[in-house]
Amino acid sequence: MEKEKIVLAYSGGLDTSVAVKWLQDQYNYDVIAIALDVGEGKDLESVKTKALDVGAVKSYVVDAKSLFADEYVLPALQANLLYEGKYPLISALSRPLISKILVDIAEKEGASAVAHGCTGKGNDQVRFDVAFSGLNPNLHVVAPVREWSMSREEEIAFAKEHQIPVPVNVDSPYSIDENLWGRSNECGILEDPWEEPPKDAYGLTSDPVEEAPDEPEVVEVNFSQGKPTSLNGTELPLAELITTLNGIAGKHGVGRIDHVENRLVGIKSREIYEAPAAAVLLGAHQELESLTLTRETAHFKPAVEQKFAQMVYDGLWYSPLTNALKAFIEETQQFVTGTVKMKLFKGHVFPIGRQSAQSLYDFDLATYNADDAFDHEAATGFIKLWGLPTKVHSSVNESAPNDKTETELKTDMSAKETLNQ
Amino acid sequence: MEKEKIVLAYSGGLDTSVAVKWLQDQYNYDVIAIALDVGEGKDLESVKTKALDVGAVKSYVVDAKSLFADEYVLPALQANLLYEGKYPLISALSRPLISKILVDIAEKEGASAVAHGCTGKGNDQVRFDVAFSGLNPNLHVVAPVREWSMSREEEIAFAKEHQIPVPVNVDSPYSIDENLWGRSNECGILEDPWEEPPKDAYGLTSDPVEEAPDEPEVVEVNFSQGKPTSLNGTELPLAELITTLNGIAGKHGVGRIDHVENRLVGIKSREIYEAPAAAVLLGAHQELESLTLTRETAHFKPAVEQKFAQMVYDGLWYSPLTNALKAFIEETQQFVTGTVKMKLFKGHVFPIGRQSAQSLYDFDLATYNADDAFDHEAATGFIKLWGLPTKVHSSVNESAPNDKTETELKTDMSAKETLNQ
Amino acid sequence: MEKEKIVLAYSGGLDTSVAVKWLQDQYNYDVIAIALDVGEGKDLESVKTKALDVGAVKSYVVDAKSLFADEYVLPALQANLLYEGKYPLISALSRPLISKILVDIAEKEGASAVAHGCTGKGNDQVRFDVAFSGLNPNLHVVAPVREWSMSREEEIAFAKEHQIPVPVNVDSPYSIDENLWGRSNECGILEDPWEEPPKDAYGLTSDPVEEAPDEPEVVEVNFSQGKPTSLNGTELPLAELITTLNGIAGKHGVGRIDHVENRLVGIKSREIYEAPAAAVLLGAHQELESLTLTRETAHFKPAVEQKFAQMVYDGLWYSPLTNALKAFIEETQQFVTGTVKMKLFKGHVFPIGRQSAQSLYDFDLATYNADDAFDHEAATGFIKLWGLPTKVHSSVNESAPNDKTETELKTDMSAKETLNQ
Amino acid sequence: MEKEKIVLAYSGGLDTSVAVKWLQDQYNYDVIAIALDVGEGKDLESVKTKALDVGAVKSYVVDAKSLFADEYVLPALQANLLYEGKYPLISALSRPLISKILVDIAEKEGASAVAHGCTGKGNDQVRFDVAFSGLNPNLHVVAPVREWSMSREEEIAFAKEHQIPVPVNVDSPYSIDENLWGRSNECGILEDPWEEPPKDAYGLTSDPVEEAPDEPEVVEVNFSQGKPTSLNGTELPLAELITTLNGIAGKHGVGRIDHVENRLVGIKSREIYEAPAAAVLLGAHQELESLTLTRETAHFKPAVEQKFAQMVYDGLWYSPLTNALKAFIEETQQFVTGTVKMKLFKGHVFPIGRQSAQSLYDFDLATYNADDAFDHEAATGFIKLWGLPTKVHSSVNESAPNDKTETELKTDMSAKETLNQ
Repeated sequence: MEKEKIVLAYSGGLDTSVAVKWLQDQYNYDVIAIALDVGEGKDLESVKTKALDVGAVKSYVVDAKSLFADEYVLPALQANLLYEGKYPLISALSRPLISKILVDIAEKEGASAVAHGCTGKGNDQVRFDVAFSGLNPNLHVVAPVREWSMSREEEIAFAKEHQIPVPVNVDSPYSIDENLWGRSNECGILEDPWEEPPKDAYGLTSDPVEEAPDEPEVVEVNFSQGKPTSLNGTELPLAELITTLNGIAGKHGVGRIDHVENRLVGIKSREIYEAPAAAVLLGAHQELESLTLTRETAHFKPAVEQKFAQMVYDGLWYSPLTNALKAFIEETQQFVTGTVKMKLFKGHVFPIGRQSAQSLYDFDLATYNADDAFDHEAATGFIKLWGLPTKVHSSVNESAPNDKTETELKTDMSAKETLNQ
Repeated sequence: MEKEKIVLAYSGGLDTSVAVKWLQDQYNYDVIAIALDVGEGKDLESVKTKALDVGAVKSYVVDAKSLFADEYVLPALQANLLYEGKYPLISALSRPLISKILVDIAEKEGASAVAHGCTGKGNDQVRFDVAFSGLNPNLHVVAPVREWSMSREEEIAFAKEHQIPVPVNVDSPYSIDENLWGRSNECGILEDPWEEPPKDAYGLTSDPVEEAPDEPEVVEVNFSQGKPTSLNGTELPLAELITTLNGIAGKHGVGRIDHVENRLVGIKSREIYEAPAAAVLLGAHQELESLTLTRETAHFKPAVEQKFAQMVYDGLWYSPLTNALKAFIEETQQFVTGTVKMKLFKGHVFPIGRQSAQSLYDFDLATYNADDAFDHEAATGFIKLWGLPTKVHSSVNESAPNDKTETELKTDMSAKETLNQ
Repeated sequence: MEKEKIVLAYSGGLDTSVAVKWLQDQYNYDVIAIALDVGEGKDLESVKTKALDVGAVKSYVVDAKSLFADEYVLPALQANLLYEGKYPLISALSRPLISKILVDIAEKEGASAVAHGCTGKGNDQVRFDVAFSGLNPNLHVVAPVREWSMSREEEIAFAKEHQIPVPVNVDSPYSIDENLWGRSNECGILEDPWEEPPKDAYGLTSDPVEEAPDEPEVVEVNFSQGKPTSLNGTELPLAELITTLNGIAGKHGVGRIDHVENRLVGIKSREIYEAPAAAVLLGAHQELESLTLTRETAHFKPAVEQKFAQMVYDGLWYSPLTNALKAFIEETQQFVTGTVKMKLFKGHVFPIGRQSAQSLYDFDLATYNADDAFDHEAATGFIKLWGLPTKVHSSVNESAPNDKTETELKTDMSAKETLNQ
Repeated sequence: MEKEKIVLAYSGGLDTSVAVKWLQDQYNYDVIAIALDVGEGKDLESVKTKALDVGAVKSYVVDAKSLFADEYVLPALQANLLYEGKYPLISALSRPLISKILVDIAEKEGASAVAHGCTGKGNDQVRFDVAFSGLNPNLHVVAPVREWSMSREEEIAFAKEHQIPVPVNVDSPYSIDENLWGRSNECGILEDPWEEPPKDAYGLTSDPVEEAPDEPEVVEVNFSQGKPTSLNGTELPLAELITTLNGIAGKHGVGRIDHVENRLVGIKSREIYEAPAAAVLLGAHQELESLTLTRETAHFKPAVEQKFAQMVYDGLWYSPLTNALKAFIEETQQFVTGTVKMKLFKGHVFPIGRQSAQSLYDFDLATYNADDAFDHEAATGFIKLWGLPTKVHSSVNESAPNDKTETELKTDMSAKETLNQ
């Protein structure tokens, strides 16, 4: 009888290599290994070979950089996604892409199951499991590392016993994930949120104090309908634009993020992220939006963005609500076209100019000079009606505001005692 | 018959000096001038004298720095208030305080009216008018500058005619407002959002590139229930702590903000803000909250904060909703006690450590080392139920996700054509 | 020289008839009158003639019922729009449609201005003015009734002087607006919110106590992707379906709404609405959504709906944010297909059954009988992680919950004193 | 050695009676049974005796009606809590109270554990488990029914074997929970959401069609700071007021709710609720708020309410966010004082009048009669600035609105073809 097939997200590291063997031993699966490059600069060919070496019956490798940039990073950029205001969702964005490719291949290969190498404590297990069930609820999901009860030592022993090569950096204190949109690092000394991360915790960015150049650098980014289309005047596909910008901004130490975050599984963890291109592009995109979105859109969009960030963080990319949030965002982006200048310097990035043919900044209305087109008298009527609910309230409840500011009044009185008159 | 009294917010500048005279001429008021120091380092004595010189019947001066810090800045800090994610509400916070002192003095002096020197185009006119009507709806409000139809030249001629001294910097291109919490600047070349602000646009911060020290500096801030209580180990009243920190952070070029913002009166304007202490304290406060607030609080508080920022920006400090928002914020702050280290360097400020006796970061749960107290098996059950709505949805609407990702699939297919197997 | 043309929203009533003449006299316009039927059952032909009689140079009449139902009412239904939880936005939805037709005709006719008959106190003036500027910012807007300073008596005198017929019901205490989606009534005795509206305040609904039938009636509504497509098994265009349902539900006294609402212009007003079909369809639509939307969508959609209702109420239909909100809603509706049974009885409407091929209600998961497919053990893991943030918080801040419930504890203790043991 | 003690929430029914025995057998606990009356009209004395009969070492009974009304129902009423817009959180509100009393007694008795009788599928298990860990994270929690693997038949056999009386209604198809705030019913035929609930599914309300009186009845409720204080002119403690009102409103068939809801554990379930007093009080409270809250409060409070409802439904009553939400709500209620008249008739309840000394409804501003105090000219200025962002947007992006309404235009054109001119 034919063995059932399982499609495994294969990184080439120890955990997923051991998993190939373990899935054969434990469940009698034929393992099909899939390795993706989402921008971490992986040598796909050697990973492909390694998968076969450790026992996979088939080994796929996929260059998914463009797909990742266009279909996952772009909506995140257009929605200014930052989980808890800080984390640009680096790994959280790649998980649904990886899941989709795994499911597509599983369906093509007639596999009955999919597998990932996540532990039982992080967010990524949720993202994979839920993405799989959103994409194809009939596939069985196996998470070997979550399931086996091997300690690190036992795992290494198992690897040696089965001729699985143990990486030289197996004792690295860090747990790292990287793609086009950035790099995350956790574990080891980073688990103490009072400690400054040591230099070796960083991989994409120069040290702002000791290594970043002494001269600032200005980059100019063009957007068309919310999509970055050129960098310093050169048109580039998004994946390439991001890669180039990672180099430039990383050199200036831009994009380091030190975050104590709330995981979906209920714990707080301390993460060190680096996202040089993301820092520049998210900043530039927001500047351009400040020029091109109406006030009403500008003030409601953050509520949609916060929910969208939560959905992505929580592994719900393939869900109807995410699609509806994306539809909202997409609609807002049609006017977000123009150019932004960002200055990079020793870890800092700040906007210094933005322009757009669709700019709603109206010099004639805004200026305080003599040509002012603003109707100053309209303000009087506006304020009268704007403040009317408050005025009626205080007329009716006359003593109320004073009741509420007893402390203030006391302080105030002492302030007035120092009055000179 | 006795003349009616009006209480005027008096800055000592040209507009409010002319207003003293104009209010006498136009409306036959006895003008009582009030000058406040909210941290801009004003020489109150000379302003007091000037008010009497230009015709005020009485001249009050008030050192309102502590009151401003404790009653207006502190709630804003505890709520992490940033209008449109960028502006720490510098002037917007001082307006309600100034309004309150004016109303208190108007009531004490038996005045029938209050006056401010705002034009008909900015936000501040709204803030004063609405604050006045919230505090005492029976007071008449006059806004001379909004009302008179003098051009700059006519105003200067009026001043000369009435022996009102015209300041030497009357031709400054900028319009500046400053207090403890920062400095705002607009007008002139700043009205072109594509232009980088010139050096002379800044007054509180060193140029990060050319002037900031080459060595980073770490500051340590202690908070007790969300209130900063000591700086680098020294206990300080809040107003003093902010002043000191403005000096330190300003030296490092920290706190510059370049913002195209949506005004309440319907236009976009470009503003240059400097808020050195605010940048450090807002950052530090958020870091401490990341350690001490539960996930649920951390994820809902931003919605309250955004509304609170809007209310302050829109001049609705003295309104029942603001009081309710403050009650929410206050309740969340009881656990926000601890210490944060922030590093300042060439325009950038970033957190490098945070600790708290009330920290909810639990090393034993978070760690990936052998002593891990987290129940990994619980994750399986959690994910099952977490993803259940999505799974049921995709089971029922099987083709749905694919329908929604037609583009993705197409791209995906081309990606898969490059597969090696 | 040719006179400029103005396009006037013409109802046939006194105000807009007088406005025709007044616009000629005051501004020397050629007036083009436009009358629309949006479901109030107007005799368009006689209105057309009357417009010409009172001096219009041209008179258009438009049957806009289908347009109104399909393009304005439908998105409102799909978004369950109720301003302040009660008002189905009857007039607020017709204003943008009327504005659009006026602007289209103004552009076709080469008119330089548009006019509406609203006073300076209601919401509708805002809706017209803002819709006009959103559709064509170059058109001049005139609001004769807001602008002229005639009292009711002066207006009647003006009418008589100019041979404008004065309606027999000119002394009606009420101010009524009606369309497909319902009827609004204000003024007169209704301005006292403590008084129950008299019988003659209602026009679309039977008195639930005295007139409604003694037998309940069940209606069955089919929806396809959020759009009502058939009533009691008969397929009907939306406008017709609504009209039919207004008859059925109105007979049962369903859809009366007594609302004290907050107007955009800052005042509270008391309104009596009747919306029989809206009451049934909004209820049925929500029932079907309860079956077909995922939990995540169901819990976030109300935030979008509330903002959408606000935008419509506030006259911002033609604005980018409204378009983005509509895009969100539309995306959610693709699964809202199925059938709902609603029971109508003496003023009350309630759901008694709902079914859908896309129902996410899963009997096998939901049932408590023996065939239950739900994984009960998963719950243990789920709860552990769900409650983890709270548990860590209470471990760290042990005394906290008790501090917060001092009152409770005291009461509790007295409760325990009555314990029998 | 002394046996450990466990405190069990004891209802007197089969499940918790079996649990007493099972906890002894399985875990060797001494079981302390706690029975509470939260308004379901339980005979506490007989339950107390039964607990001892089936093996409890101690049996507490607590009349918790006042505590429930004042500390749990009241905040829910003030926040207008309706989960998913429909469910007044009947059981969800009693769980934290029961948990608190269990924990208090456990601490007093030196017990090491607490137990509840919930299954592994509902919401209540979450509410108990999480409330326990919020109140005392050191207590061990046991959920016998979730844990044992007995079918209904095995459970009955176990009961008979241990001389535990089996209730006569053990075969009832329904699962019912009841308290002051209402009654919930699920299971049996109710599990088919297309079926109208049979008559015997209801217990608190008359059939609106067949049993409710033919005469409507008006009730008048007084509120003081958001708390109902008297009914029809008679001052009553809240618990008593609710009980009385349940009788009155139940007689008129008011308060039936048929709801397909999203459970926290990821499934949809169909529930039949009856909440006669809640229907009246929630309606009346909202009416009074419509008169006494400012527009700003009225428009933001629903966001707080929705989150509060979610927190209660999800079992997070004892968490810092809930405390902060309560602080917000409490602050808003200080002005909610006044009287509301509600009419009850054949299943329907509707407001017919509301008044308040703190009413913000201002007749002089609202009226359309000659004494109107509203400044009509202010409206012009207001609208100008209100619509300015939209106007600038459409000026800049002239073709945009038309692009977005292609369909409309098409329909529109066909509409215009029917124009008569």
